[in-house]
Amino acid sequence: MRTLYHLWLSPFCRKIRIVLEEKQIKFQLKAEGVWNRRKDFLAINPAGEVPVLIEPDGTALSGSSVIFEYLEEIGGDPTLLGKNSMQRAETRRLVDWFDRKFNLEVTEKLVGEKFIKRFLEIGEPNSESVRAGHNNIHIHLDYINYLIERRHWLAGDIMTIADLAAAAHLSTIDYIGSVPWSDHEIAKNWYARIKSRPSFRKILKDRIPGAPPPKNYSDLDF
Amino acid sequence: MRTLYHLWLSPFCRKIRIVLEEKQIKFQLKAEGVWNRRKDFLAINPAGEVPVLIEPDGTALSGSSVIFEYLEEIGGDPTLLGKNSMQRAETRRLVDWFDRKFNLEVTEKLVGEKFIKRFLEIGEPNSESVRAGHNNIHIHLDYINYLIERRHWLAGDIMTIADLAAAAHLSTIDYIGSVPWSDHEIAKNWYARIKSRPSFRKILKDRIPGAPPPKNYSDLDF
Repeated sequence: MRTLYHLWLSPFCRKIRIVLEEKQIKFQLKAEGVWNRRKDFLAINPAGEVPVLIEPDGTALSGSSVIFEYLEEIGGDPTLLGKNSMQRAETRRLVDWFDRKFNLEVTEKLVGEKFIKRFLEIGEPNSESVRAGHNNIHIHLDYINYLIERRHWLAGDIMTIADLAAAAHLSTIDYIGSVPWSDHEIAKNWYARIKSRPSFRKILKDRIPGAPPPKNYSDLDF
Repeated sequence: MRTLYHLWLSPFCRKIRIVLEEKQIKFQLKAEGVWNRRKDFLAINPAGEVPVLIEPDGTALSGSSVIFEYLEEIGGDPTLLGKNSMQRAETRRLVDWFDRKFNLEVTEKLVGEKFIKRFLEIGEPNSESVRAGHNNIHIHLDYINYLIERRHWLAGDIMTIADLAAAAHLSTIDYIGSVPWSDHEIAKNWYARIKSRPSFRKILKDRIPGAPPPKNYSDLDF
């Protein structure tokens, strides 16, 4: 049995959880409070970050891109990258867009500032960052609209890791009720498609003690 | 003919330049002052960053990981990733280590603060950051020592993109004379091996107008 060390609201961990479900690879989840810098965990991953995937033989893999590429290689069809090199490049470009640019401009500014800081009691949200996050999310939802008007999925004809990465980020922001879905109908319909997949079911059941999500977080008709 | 938009001291651009040379793929270089936010360049890559690779058919690829994985797929043998999935995972883990962690803790704190800020006239170096960079580089060189004592190359038996990524970062810091090689003999010998490769030759000839490197930057016996 594989083990995935994770944190509930980490978009990178959510991405890997969804990939494992999509590829029907069995695993158990273990929450790791990385801020405790637990010695045994640091021995597994000196960078002290999640996600970390422990393979059945005990080998540890860390970093969401590393784990994803590995699962894509060993997990067989259907591909979550695309069917040819140029298609895979477009998929990876969009994953980078969401995991780096969207993460910095939106996820960290909303989930990071509004939720994580309070949850870990490491300070008050920086109101300028929060405001920037609320502005930036519109630009990114417009970009999703733009792509989905032209393609069936973000990177092309088939659903890829680009869709899952983007949805993983948005799901964490949705958990704190901060996605302005009503202004972005096309992006909303795209998200509804992903939200309805069996691979997303456990994500929608995540409940952080003392901090439940709004009702339409898990509602398929939101 | 392919075109690579780049910046001289970007470790991410250097990595791709070396990969193209290793794979003997012909290309021309174009320097792109990304800070000018040139309209035609933003049309190619909305993120406004280098490296960007233009394929012979005009298709643009952006982001060093995206470009690398693409070149690895189309460029044929020898592999720069490794021969099996677990090996490739280890290679990608180390690339992430250098491109994210090393970049943040060392490259940005030394090249970014000491050189780029002055070059672009956007302020004085933050002395605390510079001090942290000078401290952090020792930890990372120790890590290279540790790996090279156990393996022939950073990720295992064969030279991979992990070696090239690490060397690309170190080469930019070496350009400003800030790598304490004399304290890290094993890492120095590993770097000498990469520095001697034909693929590295043009990197060693880089000269930024008005800011030449120290003599041993291009010296193979440094």
